[in-house]
Amino acid sequence: MSLILTLGIVLFSLSSLYFLIKPKAGLNSPFLVSITTLVSYVLMLEGGFLVGSPDTGLYWTRWAFYGLSCPLLIYEISKQLGLDNKQNFTNIFLTAMVMLTGVLSSITSGDYKLAFFAISCVIFCKVLYSVFTSKSDQLVRIAPYMILGWSAFPVVFLLSFEGYGLIQNVLAASIYLGLDLFTKILFYFHHSAVSKTVTD
Amino acid sequence: MSLILTLGIVLFSLSSLYFLIKPKAGLNSPFLVSITTLVSYVLMLEGGFLVGSPDTGLYWTRWAFYGLSCPLLIYEISKQLGLDNKQNFTNIFLTAMVMLTGVLSSITSGDYKLAFFAISCVIFCKVLYSVFTSKSDQLVRIAPYMILGWSAFPVVFLLSFEGYGLIQNVLAASIYLGLDLFTKILFYFHHSAVSKTVTD
Amino acid sequence: MSLILTLGIVLFSLSSLYFLIKPKAGLNSPFLVSITTLVSYVLMLEGGFLVGSPDTGLYWTRWAFYGLSCPLLIYEISKQLGLDNKQNFTNIFLTAMVMLTGVLSSITSGDYKLAFFAISCVIFCKVLYSVFTSKSDQLVRIAPYMILGWSAFPVVFLLSFEGYGLIQNVLAASIYLGLDLFTKILFYFHHSAVSKTVTD
Repeated sequence: MSLILTLGIVLFSLSSLYFLIKPKAGLNSPFLVSITTLVSYVLMLEGGFLVGSPDTGLYWTRWAFYGLSCPLLIYEISKQLGLDNKQNFTNIFLTAMVMLTGVLSSITSGDYKLAFFAISCVIFCKVLYSVFTSKSDQLVRIAPYMILGWSAFPVVFLLSFEGYGLIQNVLAASIYLGLDLFTKILFYFHHSAVSKTVTD
Repeated sequence: MSLILTLGIVLFSLSSLYFLIKPKAGLNSPFLVSITTLVSYVLMLEGGFLVGSPDTGLYWTRWAFYGLSCPLLIYEISKQLGLDNKQNFTNIFLTAMVMLTGVLSSITSGDYKLAFFAISCVIFCKVLYSVFTSKSDQLVRIAPYMILGWSAFPVVFLLSFEGYGLIQNVLAASIYLGLDLFTKILFYFHHSAVSKTVTD
Repeated sequence: MSLILTLGIVLFSLSSLYFLIKPKAGLNSPFLVSITTLVSYVLMLEGGFLVGSPDTGLYWTRWAFYGLSCPLLIYEISKQLGLDNKQNFTNIFLTAMVMLTGVLSSITSGDYKLAFFAISCVIFCKVLYSVFTSKSDQLVRIAPYMILGWSAFPVVFLLSFEGYGLIQNVLAASIYLGLDLFTKILFYFHHSAVSKTVTD
């Protein structure tokens, strides 16, 4: 478990550094997202807020930090899709609520866990609906990140000890790390590459 | 106590669903407010953060969630009153502070409880002042929500176990539920009805 | 210790009252900053969240409340320096992250304390860089607040029990109070005086 989390720390330190140095027009959200994720990984490794042991416990702070980073990601996505400011703010607020209910689902049990998970999913579907009904030609580039990336998080949640406990924490943390790299680093490289091509 | 909170869950599930489906121009704050309040009621029923027993304990999370929903409400109110963006942001920040000091007043005791309550009231009065000195013709419609609705919360707070313990938790929760319906659902129906009349 | 914190309460009550009454064009951030700091001092005196005893314990809530007030200050500073909205938002987000990692550094120990402190400093340097590379003639007025004021907080942190424990809590709290008055009250008087001169 320490290995995976340390790997996350190394990778998000590097990406933070890269996005910090690399010049970027507009809001440097890649850096903000990376540094927030870095802090999240350090905190998970530290283990002070972990409920239970590293191998079977609940890393609920993960969702709290996603509550800071993912609103920034959805802001970028909504911007790239050309949604207006009010739709964008709605998505930002709702994404934060998805993560807040994720925290609550993580630390509660039984029917309440299920209830918070269900509310979280309903809100997430509202965000997805807003993304997929946008009539932007950017949608084809962004869609895979939402379907293969964002939507995989609740599935892993259900399979892990935060849900039905079908997979070990090490496996869950490994998949989460892969998803983090996909949705929080590769997403920005991809967008940056596309923007460059368009400009050239 | 469970009955009242379950009733709150049912009603705010319905209002969330209604506001989710109903088309609305601009920011869909009615949905954001309802879904936030729904989460708050589920958490109160779950009882994990309750300090004490359901019948005599302190439901401080209520005020934390008002700290998320009421800034959205005051945003709408400030907008409808034609306040400028800076006054609006001031009201949003101060409303969140009213609720944060409400949380602190709820969980502390003695002089500190009183001090946090007093600070909360002073900040709330500043917000009320900003609302009632606006020269909008919408004020006559909005005023009852502020006077009979918003201003009743601190009174119930004082009477309940969070204050001087003169009324039972069931009664306090029932009044809060009524006030929630009044300020968070009826308020939007009323505004929506008026807007429609104006448009017609 | 109580004496220093009570002095803080008195001074920030007075400044809150002053900034509340004094007419101010635009966002009344001086009032928002003062009232937030007031709540922070009352909470520190109350001691409910203090980890340890007043004389040797960790007042981590200080940094949580700076996470609310300092983003407002950096907003004003970025505005006065003529930074654009996206740079301004970046500074606001990063300043909040400086304080969040400050909280985490305060309550953890050993390597993790150091790691969170290091991340906090890196982010803070990014904010400082953004301030000092602005080409505004206001920089000469603002610079002393950043160098002698803002930058002194992490130094005191390191010297206090939150760091290497070289100075007592009473001394640390006294210096923090001085820095608070300098960066959160004097800063606004200075700016207000300059603005007036320019207008005259």
